[in-house]
Amino acid sequence: MNKVVVIGGGVAAKGFVITSKKLNKDVTHTVIRSNRRAPVPCGIPYALGVLKDPNDNLSADTEIIDQGSTLVIDDVISINRDEKKVYLKNNDPVAYDQLVLATGSNPIKPKFEGIDLEGIYIIEKDLDKTVDLRAKVEAAKSVVIVGGGFIGVELADEISHLSGKKITLVEYAPYCLSVAFEAKYSIEIEEKMKLHGINVLTGISVQGFSGTGAVQKVKLSNGEFIDADIVFLVIGAVPNSSLAKEAGLELDSRSAIKVDEYQRTSDPNIMAIGDCASKIDLFTNEVSNIRLASIASKEGRNAAYNLLGKKKLMSPVGITNLFSTAVKGDYFAAAGMTRQQCEDAGYGVIQVEVSEFNRHPGKLPGAVKTRGTFFFDNSDLKLLGAQLAGNDQVAEMINGIGIAIQNNATAYNLFAYNYATQPMGTFAPNKYLLHLAATQAIVQFEN
Amino acid sequence: MNKVVVIGGGVAAKGFVITSKKLNKDVTHTVIRSNRRAPVPCGIPYALGVLKDPNDNLSADTEIIDQGSTLVIDDVISINRDEKKVYLKNNDPVAYDQLVLATGSNPIKPKFEGIDLEGIYIIEKDLDKTVDLRAKVEAAKSVVIVGGGFIGVELADEISHLSGKKITLVEYAPYCLSVAFEAKYSIEIEEKMKLHGINVLTGISVQGFSGTGAVQKVKLSNGEFIDADIVFLVIGAVPNSSLAKEAGLELDSRSAIKVDEYQRTSDPNIMAIGDCASKIDLFTNEVSNIRLASIASKEGRNAAYNLLGKKKLMSPVGITNLFSTAVKGDYFAAAGMTRQQCEDAGYGVIQVEVSEFNRHPGKLPGAVKTRGTFFFDNSDLKLLGAQLAGNDQVAEMINGIGIAIQNNATAYNLFAYNYATQPMGTFAPNKYLLHLAATQAIVQFEN
Repeated sequence: MNKVVVIGGGVAAKGFVITSKKLNKDVTHTVIRSNRRAPVPCGIPYALGVLKDPNDNLSADTEIIDQGSTLVIDDVISINRDEKKVYLKNNDPVAYDQLVLATGSNPIKPKFEGIDLEGIYIIEKDLDKTVDLRAKVEAAKSVVIVGGGFIGVELADEISHLSGKKITLVEYAPYCLSVAFEAKYSIEIEEKMKLHGINVLTGISVQGFSGTGAVQKVKLSNGEFIDADIVFLVIGAVPNSSLAKEAGLELDSRSAIKVDEYQRTSDPNIMAIGDCASKIDLFTNEVSNIRLASIASKEGRNAAYNLLGKKKLMSPVGITNLFSTAVKGDYFAAAGMTRQQCEDAGYGVIQVEVSEFNRHPGKLPGAVKTRGTFFFDNSDLKLLGAQLAGNDQVAEMINGIGIAIQNNATAYNLFAYNYATQPMGTFAPNKYLLHLAATQAIVQFEN
Repeated sequence: MNKVVVIGGGVAAKGFVITSKKLNKDVTHTVIRSNRRAPVPCGIPYALGVLKDPNDNLSADTEIIDQGSTLVIDDVISINRDEKKVYLKNNDPVAYDQLVLATGSNPIKPKFEGIDLEGIYIIEKDLDKTVDLRAKVEAAKSVVIVGGGFIGVELADEISHLSGKKITLVEYAPYCLSVAFEAKYSIEIEEKMKLHGINVLTGISVQGFSGTGAVQKVKLSNGEFIDADIVFLVIGAVPNSSLAKEAGLELDSRSAIKVDEYQRTSDPNIMAIGDCASKIDLFTNEVSNIRLASIASKEGRNAAYNLLGKKKLMSPVGITNLFSTAVKGDYFAAAGMTRQQCEDAGYGVIQVEVSEFNRHPGKLPGAVKTRGTFFFDNSDLKLLGAQLAGNDQVAEMINGIGIAIQNNATAYNLFAYNYATQPMGTFAPNKYLLHLAATQAIVQFEN
């Protein structure tokens, strides 16, 4: 059995290790991770809100360290590809036959004035740091969140569960979550947050921080200053590819580690998975900037299969944007491209809007008017993107849409599919959102 | 414009009419229906339970009678294909260029001893009758439901919302819902019903009814008699194809009207859709006995497209069983074939069981341990069937699985797909049920 070494301990690494052990129970790994305890990464906002104890957000190591595998808590200093060894800060070098890089991404911390003041935090995937942050945010009165992406919105929503906070969310773009949603959904999300007392500022950027030792004020592009005892910087992340770069591996235009469709880097003995690895968009065939835990998971398990599967390499599938989130109990989900992304990629777009109750009759308890926006290619009705708003079911509906997209579905397919319907569980048979959207698209296309 | 006449007013007819009007807003129909007011068919159990007013289960006619279309409430006596006319009981004959048969199905009412006693009912798709039944079931003390399929189980569950009833469900098969679920899910559903005071008798058949004028006792195959003020017979339905048969149209082996993949009968001027129309199973290519509102809807809209679409006939897709139901607040859903159905169809089966929390971390509020059983073809890992139990999200997850099945997905596809994940909305990235099931199947297949 080859000696497999994994650098990193996040979702991609775990997906790789867990799947490997399922495919071959005798396989062992050495996993090298810098943090003592790993959190569920997407769960961090919840560890600062609805979860009373942030330790409940632990991502257990039991699946990594069973059956003879080893977890090494240390920092990797360098990779020597000729020796096929990984050099560590505090431990002896580790030899590998196959190295898997799952080094993740680093949150962006821009060189704002006052950035080094105490009380200004990025979100790091380290449970001990989450526990520390929890205490700090509980003690704070004025909380400023810089960045209105998914993490920023979820942080604002969750911290608003803690009483007595003044929360401000600052987003430089005209709308929050505009990477995933049309303005109408973003506005709905912003209005919900405002209704719950969150101060949402869009189209405004942060210019710096001031305070004596610790942050006290945030300076905005409109010239105003807002109070802050604690600041979260959640404005994006960049691939953590420095080790790979120093080892001479090829990077893509966004500094992610170049991989082929089987997650192999330019070195045949090294794979890369998760946020550090390059991704190709299913629609545009171009390098994508989307980094999601769900994609990291997929890359981890596919890499495991490519090493251990008996029949053939997995057939490649480009990545599709697939998102969902919950804000104040309402759910929003998106697949594929936004209208703007469709147009930027050169597609002519047929856009349709649909809305129906997710119970039938609509007077049944629990009925929620569920809304959808769909984009189709105006040359062949290929489904390019969809956005949904409703109850928690939209988080699963979007996966049905994701499966359709990954099968290159057109409006004709969505129209012709059979969908299960049940009064207490779904839309009425004649009112299921996917075929309603498809019908509208066909009408526009054929007339 | 051709004169299009539709016989029937249920889901298929409405799907046809609504879709037709969307495809061409100038199209008009004459819809001939025997009942004054149509209910939401699948909503009938709820109109006898959680809905306080059964009139809330109305399926409105506005979508049929707008824009110059006509709704005729009358019984059809015969179809004259030479004259291309439909003869009615109380009105003048109606001429057609294109006739669409959506005559539905008739609930089975077997010739049991005492079957004609008062108080014994089948479930008819007629809102006035539902209103009448509601009053009768409210007045009853002992309710007996004969048949443990979806309608029987949902009726028992719903009537148990009304206080002071003694409810007995009698199913002749060893388990309820065995057309859709493995025994373990059926047992779970039965246990839930029992816990809520419903007397569930399985493996027992009804042999007759006794009473003076009205039913008072139900005689069972085990020799026992149970009290009954009201009896619901919900043991299945047969296609209502008598008009078609008398008009000389071809029927299939189950007495449904033969149609091609475009819903055309043996007469080029007549289509058939919904429960009265023949269905071909996607997996077995044989005549299916499954009749569902969701399939009726699909056939209705596909027929509309085939008449009015500008480009080409819709590509045909055989029907897939897709079910969901709610019992005492828990949800169950099924797609494709059960294990028994796989084996009966000659498939070798790889069966896998998976179970995970639908939130991550699992300590988040609302987390439900969601369970799944999956069947794959042991020769090529094609997905043959799946069953899920959890919260209302499984009613949408099953549609994602349905889309996969309708794209001939294998375990390799389910393994390689990307799925959206979010702490408050789904399983963890590395714990999404579909790729977990796929991994297990691949392991069994390759080892």
